[in-house]
Amino acid sequence: MTDHPTRTDDRTKTIMRAALDLARELGYAKLTIEAVAARAGVGKHTVYRRWPSRGLLFLDAVLSLNTSGLNHPDTGDIVADLRVVMTRAADLLGQPPWGPLYQDLIGEAQHDPEVAAALSRRFIEPQTADTLSRLKTAKEQGQLAPDFDPELAFEILSGPLYFRLLITQQPVTHDYIDRVLQAVFSGMAPRTQA
Amino acid sequence: MTDHPTRTDDRTKTIMRAALDLARELGYAKLTIEAVAARAGVGKHTVYRRWPSRGLLFLDAVLSLNTSGLNHPDTGDIVADLRVVMTRAADLLGQPPWGPLYQDLIGEAQHDPEVAAALSRRFIEPQTADTLSRLKTAKEQGQLAPDFDPELAFEILSGPLYFRLLITQQPVTHDYIDRVLQAVFSGMAPRTQA
Repeated sequence: MTDHPTRTDDRTKTIMRAALDLARELGYAKLTIEAVAARAGVGKHTVYRRWPSRGLLFLDAVLSLNTSGLNHPDTGDIVADLRVVMTRAADLLGQPPWGPLYQDLIGEAQHDPEVAAALSRRFIEPQTADTLSRLKTAKEQGQLAPDFDPELAFEILSGPLYFRLLITQQPVTHDYIDRVLQAVFSGMAPRTQA
Repeated sequence: MTDHPTRTDDRTKTIMRAALDLARELGYAKLTIEAVAARAGVGKHTVYRRWPSRGLLFLDAVLSLNTSGLNHPDTGDIVADLRVVMTRAADLLGQPPWGPLYQDLIGEAQHDPEVAAALSRRFIEPQTADTLSRLKTAKEQGQLAPDFDPELAFEILSGPLYFRLLITQQPVTHDYIDRVLQAVFSGMAPRTQA
Protein backbone atom coordinates (compact mmCIF):
# COMPACT_ATOMS: atom_id res chain seq x y z
CA MET A 1 0.00 0.00 0.00
CA THR A 2 2.65 2.53 0.97
CA ASP A 3 4.59 2.29 -2.29
CA HIS A 4 1.50 2.29 -4.47
CA PRO A 5 1.59 6.02 -5.42
CA THR A 6 5.24 5.70 -6.42
CA ARG A 7 4.55 2.68 -8.60
CA THR A 8 1.68 4.52 -10.31
CA ASP A 9 3.85 7.55 -10.83
CA ASP A 10 6.62 5.45 -12.36
CA ARG A 11 4.18 3.78 -14.69
CA THR A 12 2.80 7.17 -15.77
CA LYS A 13 6.31 8.31 -16.57
CA THR A 14 7.05 5.11 -18.48
CA ILE A 15 3.93 5.57 -20.61
CA MET A 16 4.70 9.23 -21.35
CA ARG A 17 8.30 8.34 -22.21
CA ALA A 18 7.05 5.64 -24.60
CA ALA A 19 4.73 8.15 -26.31
CA LEU A 20 7.58 10.63 -26.84
CA ASP A 21 9.97 7.96 -28.10
CA LEU A 22 7.44 6.56 -30.54
CA ALA A 23 6.46 10.00 -31.84
CA ARG A 24 10.11 10.67 -32.64
CA GLU A 25 10.75 7.23 -34.14
CA LEU A 26 7.59 6.77 -36.20
CA GLY A 27 6.29 10.30 -36.61
CA TYR A 28 3.29 11.57 -34.68
CA ALA A 29 0.85 10.58 -37.43
CA LYS A 30 1.54 6.90 -36.66
CA LEU A 31 1.35 7.20 -32.89
CA THR A 32 -1.43 5.05 -31.41
CA ILE A 33 -2.44 4.24 -27.86
CA GLU A 34 -1.93 0.55 -28.69
CA ALA A 35 1.67 1.13 -29.77
CA VAL A 36 2.38 3.23 -26.68
CA ALA A 37 0.94 0.54 -24.41
CA ALA A 38 3.04 -2.15 -26.10
CA ARG A 39 6.23 -0.08 -25.84
CA ALA A 40 5.54 0.73 -22.18
CA GLY A 41 4.74 -2.90 -21.39
CA VAL A 42 1.24 -2.20 -20.10
CA GLY A 43 -2.25 -3.03 -21.31
CA LYS A 44 -3.97 -0.45 -23.46
CA HIS A 45 -6.76 -0.10 -20.89
CA THR A 46 -4.15 1.08 -18.40
CA VAL A 47 -3.35 3.92 -20.79
CA TYR A 48 -6.99 4.72 -21.56
CA ARG A 49 -7.82 4.76 -17.83
CA ARG A 50 -5.59 7.79 -17.42
CA TRP A 51 -5.82 9.43 -20.87
CA PRO A 52 -9.00 9.38 -22.94
CA SER A 53 -7.15 10.18 -26.19
CA ARG A 54 -3.68 10.01 -27.68
CA GLY A 55 -3.71 13.82 -27.93
CA LEU A 56 -4.15 14.31 -24.18
CA LEU A 57 -1.49 11.68 -23.44
CA PHE A 58 0.88 13.41 -25.82
CA LEU A 59 0.12 16.81 -24.27
CA ASP A 60 1.04 15.54 -20.79
CA ALA A 61 4.16 13.90 -22.17
CA VAL A 62 5.40 16.99 -24.02
CA LEU A 63 4.63 19.33 -21.11
CA SER A 64 6.48 16.99 -18.73
CA LEU A 65 9.73 17.87 -20.52
CA ASN A 66 11.86 20.61 -19.08
CA THR A 67 10.87 24.04 -20.36
CA SER A 68 12.24 26.11 -17.51
CA GLY A 69 13.63 29.56 -18.25
CA LEU A 70 10.40 30.96 -19.70
CA ASN A 71 9.79 33.26 -16.72
CA HIS A 72 11.15 36.76 -17.07
CA PRO A 73 13.95 37.98 -14.85
CA ASP A 74 13.77 41.59 -13.69
CA THR A 75 17.14 43.21 -14.23
CA GLY A 76 15.53 46.64 -14.68
CA ASP A 77 16.02 46.50 -18.48
CA ILE A 78 12.85 45.35 -20.19
CA VAL A 79 14.40 44.74 -23.61
CA ALA A 80 17.18 42.63 -22.14
CA ASP A 81 14.70 40.64 -20.05
CA LEU A 82 12.39 39.98 -22.98
CA ARG A 83 15.41 38.95 -25.04
CA VAL A 84 16.46 36.37 -22.42
CA VAL A 85 13.09 34.63 -22.50
CA MET A 86 12.56 34.90 -26.27
CA THR A 87 16.03 33.50 -26.90
CA ARG A 88 15.29 30.60 -24.57
CA ALA A 89 11.98 30.01 -26.38
CA ALA A 90 13.79 30.11 -29.73
CA ASP A 91 16.28 27.51 -28.49
CA LEU A 92 13.47 25.25 -27.31
CA LEU A 93 11.50 25.60 -30.55
CA GLY A 94 14.54 25.12 -32.75
CA GLN A 95 16.03 22.02 -31.23
CA PRO A 96 15.08 18.38 -30.77
CA PRO A 97 13.55 16.87 -28.87
CA TRP A 98 11.34 19.71 -27.72
CA GLY A 99 10.83 21.68 -30.94
CA PRO A 100 9.53 18.88 -33.18
CA LEU A 101 7.43 17.37 -30.37
CA TYR A 102 5.86 20.74 -29.58
CA GLN A 103 5.14 21.22 -33.27
CA ASP A 104 3.38 17.83 -33.35
CA LEU A 105 1.38 18.86 -30.29
CA ILE A 106 0.20 22.08 -31.94
CA GLY A 107 -0.67 20.07 -35.03
CA GLU A 108 -2.86 17.79 -32.92
CA ALA A 109 -4.45 20.82 -31.24
CA GLN A 110 -5.79 21.89 -34.65
CA HIS A 111 -7.89 18.72 -34.83
CA ASP A 112 -8.67 18.20 -31.12
CA PRO A 113 -10.30 21.09 -29.21
CA GLU A 114 -9.61 19.44 -25.83
CA VAL A 115 -5.89 19.42 -26.57
CA ALA A 116 -6.05 23.03 -27.78
CA ALA A 117 -7.83 24.18 -24.62
CA ALA A 118 -5.46 22.33 -22.29
CA LEU A 119 -2.39 23.61 -24.14
CA SER A 120 -3.60 27.20 -23.76
CA ARG A 121 -4.51 26.82 -20.14
CA ARG A 122 -1.45 24.93 -18.96
CA PHE A 123 1.33 26.32 -21.13
CA ILE A 124 0.36 29.56 -22.88
CA GLU A 125 -1.62 31.35 -20.18
CA PRO A 126 1.13 31.16 -17.54
CA GLN A 127 3.65 32.59 -20.03
CA THR A 128 1.23 35.35 -21.02
CA ALA A 129 0.65 36.25 -17.36
CA ASP A 130 4.38 36.31 -16.62
CA THR A 131 5.05 38.57 -19.63
CA LEU A 132 2.23 40.90 -18.61
CA SER A 133 3.53 41.15 -15.08
CA ARG A 134 7.04 42.05 -16.24
CA LEU A 135 5.68 44.63 -18.72
CA LYS A 136 3.56 46.30 -16.07
CA THR A 137 6.65 46.93 -13.99
CA ALA A 138 8.46 48.26 -17.07
CA LYS A 139 5.58 50.58 -17.83
CA GLU A 140 5.58 51.95 -14.29
CA GLN A 141 9.28 52.67 -14.74
CA GLY A 142 8.69 54.55 -17.99
CA GLN A 143 10.34 51.91 -20.17
CA LEU A 144 7.26 51.48 -22.35
CA ALA A 145 5.17 53.94 -24.31
CA PRO A 146 2.33 55.04 -22.02
CA ASP A 147 -0.27 54.10 -24.64
CA PHE A 148 1.18 50.69 -25.46
CA ASP A 149 -1.26 47.92 -24.57
CA PRO A 150 0.72 45.31 -22.61
CA GLU A 151 -2.04 42.74 -23.12
CA LEU A 152 -0.97 42.56 -26.77
CA ALA A 153 2.74 42.19 -26.18
CA PHE A 154 2.91 38.43 -25.78
CA GLU A 155 0.96 37.85 -28.98
CA ILE A 156 2.95 40.40 -31.00
CA LEU A 157 6.32 39.16 -29.76
CA SER A 158 5.53 35.43 -29.87
CA GLY A 159 3.42 35.52 -33.02
CA PRO A 160 6.36 35.87 -35.43
CA LEU A 161 8.20 32.96 -33.75
CA TYR A 162 5.16 30.70 -34.03
CA PHE A 163 4.60 31.87 -37.60
CA ARG A 164 8.09 30.68 -38.51
CA LEU A 165 7.75 27.42 -36.58
CA LEU A 166 4.32 26.50 -37.92
CA ILE A 167 3.92 28.21 -41.27
CA THR A 168 7.16 29.00 -43.07
CA GLN A 169 9.43 26.63 -41.12
CA GLN A 170 12.22 29.23 -41.28
CA PRO A 171 14.70 29.04 -38.41
CA VAL A 172 14.09 31.12 -35.29
CA THR A 173 17.62 32.34 -34.61
CA HIS A 174 18.91 34.69 -31.95
CA ASP A 175 19.47 37.25 -34.69
CA TYR A 176 15.82 36.94 -35.65
CA ILE A 177 14.79 37.59 -32.03
CA ASP A 178 16.91 40.75 -32.01
CA ARG A 179 15.33 41.95 -35.25
CA VAL A 180 11.79 41.32 -33.98
CA LEU A 181 12.49 43.08 -30.67
CA GLN A 182 14.05 46.04 -32.47
CA ALA A 183 11.14 46.34 -34.91
CA VAL A 184 8.42 46.00 -32.27
CA PHE A 185 10.09 48.42 -29.89
CA SER A 186 10.79 51.08 -32.51
CA GLY A 187 7.55 50.64 -34.41
CA MET A 188 6.85 50.95 -38.11
CA ALA A 189 5.78 54.58 -38.13
CA PRO A 190 8.26 57.37 -38.78
CA ARG A 191 9.32 59.06 -35.56
CA THR A 192 7.88 62.51 -35.17
CA GLN A 193 8.98 65.15 -32.71
CA ALA A 194 7.06 64.66 -29.49
CA MET B 1 -10.53 13.29 -77.26
CA THR B 2 -11.59 16.92 -77.42
CA ASP B 3 -13.63 16.90 -74.23
CA HIS B 4 -11.14 14.81 -72.28
CA PRO B 5 -9.42 17.72 -70.47
CA THR B 6 -12.78 19.05 -69.34
CA ARG B 7 -13.88 15.69 -68.00
CA THR B 8 -10.60 15.32 -66.11
CA ASP B 9 -10.98 18.80 -64.71
CA ASP B 10 -14.51 18.10 -63.55
CA ARG B 11 -13.39 14.92 -61.87
CA THR B 12 -10.58 16.77 -60.10
CA LYS B 13 -13.08 19.31 -58.80
CA THR B 14 -15.46 16.56 -57.66
CA ILE B 15 -12.69 14.85 -55.70
CA MET B 16 -11.55 18.10 -54.06
CA ARG B 17 -15.15 18.97 -53.18
CA ALA B 18 -15.60 15.51 -51.62
CA ALA B 19 -12.46 16.00 -49.51
CA LEU B 20 -13.69 19.37 -48.20
CA ASP B 21 -17.18 18.05 -47.48
CA LEU B 22 -15.87 15.02 -45.61
CA ALA B 23 -13.39 17.07 -43.59
CA ARG B 24 -16.24 19.28 -42.40
CA GLU B 25 -18.63 16.38 -41.76
CA LEU B 26 -16.27 13.90 -40.08
CA GLY B 27 -13.40 16.09 -38.92
CA TYR B 28 -10.05 16.07 -40.68
CA ALA B 29 -8.62 13.34 -38.42
CA LYS B 30 -11.03 10.84 -39.99
CA LEU B 31 -10.47 11.91 -43.60
CA THR B 32 -9.05 9.09 -45.73
CA ILE B 33 -8.34 8.77 -49.45
CA GLU B 34 -10.71 5.77 -49.50
CA ALA B 35 -13.58 7.81 -48.06
CA VAL B 36 -12.94 10.65 -50.49
CA ALA B 37 -12.90 8.25 -53.45
CA ALA B 38 -16.17 6.67 -52.34
CA ARG B 39 -17.86 10.05 -51.87
CA ALA B 40 -16.60 11.28 -55.25
CA GLY B 41 -17.70 8.04 -56.94
CA VAL B 42 -14.24 7.17 -58.28
CA GLY B 43 -11.74 4.43 -57.53
CA LYS B 44 -9.08 5.18 -54.93
CA HIS B 45 -6.34 4.68 -57.52
CA THR B 46 -7.83 7.58 -59.47
CA VAL B 47 -7.24 9.76 -56.43
CA TYR B 48 -3.77 8.39 -55.73
CA ARG B 49 -2.76 8.91 -59.37
CA ARG B 50 -3.13 12.64 -58.88
CA TRP B 51 -2.36 13.06 -55.17
CA PRO B 52 0.23 10.91 -53.38
CA SER B 53 -1.19 11.73 -49.92
CA ARG B 54 -4.38 12.97 -48.32
CA GLY B 55 -2.44 16.03 -47.14
CA LEU B 56 -1.56 17.14 -50.67
CA LEU B 57 -5.13 16.49 -51.85
CA PHE B 58 -6.47 18.52 -48.96
CA LEU B 59 -3.99 21.34 -49.69
CA ASP B 60 -5.18 21.59 -53.30
CA ALA B 61 -8.79 21.48 -52.16
CA VAL B 62 -8.42 24.23 -49.53
CA LEU B 63 -6.37 26.47 -51.84
CA SER B 64 -9.00 26.05 -54.58
CA LEU B 65 -11.47 27.99 -52.43
CA ASN B 66 -11.84 31.69 -53.02
CA THR B 67 -9.32 33.70 -51.01
CA SER B 68 -9.27 36.82 -53.15
CA GLY B 69 -8.77 40.18 -51.51
CA LEU B 70 -5.39 39.36 -49.97
CA ASN B 71 -3.50 41.69 -52.32
CA HIS B 72 -2.95 45.20 -51.05
CA PRO B 73 -4.59 48.17 -52.71
CA ASP B 74 -2.52 51.34 -52.96
CA THR B 75 -4.64 54.26 -51.82
CA GLY B 76 -1.56 56.15 -50.65
CA ASP B 77 -2.32 55.37 -46.99
CA ILE B 78 -0.26 52.40 -45.83
CA VAL B 79 -2.13 51.85 -42.56
CA ALA B 80 -5.50 51.86 -44.31
CA ASP B 81 -4.23 49.47 -46.99
CA LEU B 82 -2.77 47.04 -44.47
CA ARG B 83 -6.02 47.20 -42.52
CA VAL B 84 -8.06 46.26 -45.61
CA VAL B 85 -6.05 43.09 -46.18
CA MET B 86 -5.70 42.12 -42.50
CA THR B 87 -9.44 42.56 -42.01
CA ARG B 88 -10.10 40.35 -45.03
CA ALA B 89 -7.68 37.75 -43.63
CA ALA B 90 -9.42 37.93 -40.25
CA ASP B 91 -12.78 37.34 -41.91
CA LEU B 92 -11.43 34.33 -43.79
CA LEU B 93 -9.78 32.84 -40.71
CA GLY B 94 -12.77 33.44 -38.49
CA GLN B 95 -15.53 32.00 -40.62
CA PRO B 96 -16.51 28.62 -42.01
CA PRO B 97 -15.82 27.06 -44.34
CA TRP B 98 -12.41 28.57 -44.91
CA GLY B 99 -11.21 29.16 -41.35
CA PRO B 100 -11.64 25.64 -39.93
CA LEU B 101 -10.42 24.01 -43.16
CA TYR B 102 -7.30 26.20 -43.22
CA GLN B 103 -6.70 25.34 -39.56
CA ASP B 104 -6.88 21.63 -40.43
CA LEU B 105 -4.45 22.22 -43.27
CA ILE B 106 -1.93 23.88 -40.98
CA GLY B 107 -2.39 21.00 -38.54
CA GLU B 108 -1.51 18.53 -41.28
CA ALA B 109 1.50 20.65 -42.28
CA GLN B 110 2.96 20.03 -38.81
CA HIS B 111 3.17 16.31 -39.54
CA ASP B 112 3.84 16.38 -43.30
CA PRO B 113 6.82 18.42 -44.57
CA GLU B 114 5.61 18.24 -48.19
CA VAL B 115 2.34 19.91 -47.22
CA ALA B 116 4.23 22.52 -45.20
CA ALA B 117 6.56 23.35 -48.10
CA ALA B 118 3.74 23.58 -50.63
CA LEU B 119 1.63 25.74 -48.33
CA SER B 120 4.49 28.20 -47.89
CA ARG B 121 5.34 28.31 -51.56
CA ARG B 122 1.82 28.57 -52.96
CA PHE B 123 -0.02 30.60 -50.33
CA ILE B 124 2.33 32.37 -47.92
CA GLU B 125 5.14 33.51 -50.23
CA PRO B 126 2.85 35.40 -52.65
CA GLN B 127 1.23 37.23 -49.72
CA THR B 128 4.63 38.05 -48.25
CA ALA B 129 5.83 39.40 -51.61
CA ASP B 130 2.72 41.51 -52.05
CA THR B 131 3.06 42.98 -48.55
CA LEU B 132 6.73 43.73 -49.14
CA SER B 133 5.98 45.46 -52.43
CA ARG B 134 3.33 47.69 -50.83
CA LEU B 135 5.64 48.53 -47.90
CA LYS B 136 8.50 49.50 -50.20
CA THR B 137 6.29 52.10 -51.85
CA ALA B 138 5.19 53.35 -48.43
CA LYS B 139 8.80 53.62 -47.31
CA GLU B 140 9.73 55.62 -50.39
CA GLN B 141 6.89 57.99 -49.54
CA GLY B 142 8.12 58.45 -45.98
CA GLN B 143 5.22 56.56 -44.41
CA LEU B 144 7.49 54.10 -42.61
CA ALA B 145 10.40 54.62 -40.26
CA PRO B 146 13.57 54.66 -42.40
CA ASP B 147 15.17 51.93 -40.28
CA PHE B 148 12.13 49.63 -40.21
CA ASP B 149 12.89 46.32 -41.91
CA PRO B 150 9.98 45.65 -44.31
CA GLU B 151 11.03 41.99 -44.62
CA LEU B 152 9.77 41.51 -41.06
CA ALA B 153 6.42 43.22 -41.49
CA PHE B 154 4.41 40.29 -42.77
CA GLU B 155 5.59 38.03 -39.95
CA ILE B 156 5.03 40.66 -37.25
CA LEU B 157 1.59 41.63 -38.52
CA SER B 158 0.37 38.11 -39.37
CA GLY B 159 2.02 36.35 -36.45
CA PRO B 160 -0.49 37.56 -33.84
CA LEU B 161 -3.42 36.48 -36.05
CA TYR B 162 -1.97 33.00 -36.53
CA PHE B 163 -1.15 32.83 -32.83
CA ARG B 164 -4.81 33.38 -32.00
CA LEU B 165 -6.04 30.98 -34.68
CA LEU B 166 -3.64 28.15 -33.86
CA ILE B 167 -2.66 28.55 -30.21
CA THR B 168 -5.17 30.40 -28.06
CA GLN B 169 -8.19 30.08 -30.38
CA GLN B 170 -9.27 33.58 -29.39
CA PRO B 171 -11.32 35.39 -32.04
CA VAL B 172 -9.53 37.56 -34.59
CA THR B 173 -11.90 40.53 -34.72
CA HIS B 174 -11.66 43.79 -36.64
CA ASP B 175 -11.02 45.51 -33.34
CA TYR B 176 -8.11 43.16 -32.71
CA ILE B 177 -6.65 44.05 -36.14
CA ASP B 178 -6.86 47.75 -35.25
CA ARG B 179 -5.13 47.16 -31.92
CA VAL B 180 -2.31 45.16 -33.54
CA LEU B 181 -1.79 47.77 -36.27
CA GLN B 182 -1.78 50.57 -33.71
CA ALA B 183 0.71 48.77 -31.46
CA VAL B 184 3.06 47.74 -34.28
CA PHE B 185 3.01 51.18 -35.88
CA SER B 186 3.57 53.09 -32.66
CA GLY B 187 6.02 50.63 -31.14
CA MET B 188 6.53 49.62 -27.53
CA ALA B 189 9.27 52.08 -26.70
CA PRO B 190 8.51 55.47 -25.19
CA ARG B 191 8.68 58.21 -27.82
CA THR B 192 11.71 60.41 -27.38
CA GLN B 193 12.27 63.76 -28.98
CA ALA B 194 13.92 63.21 -32.35
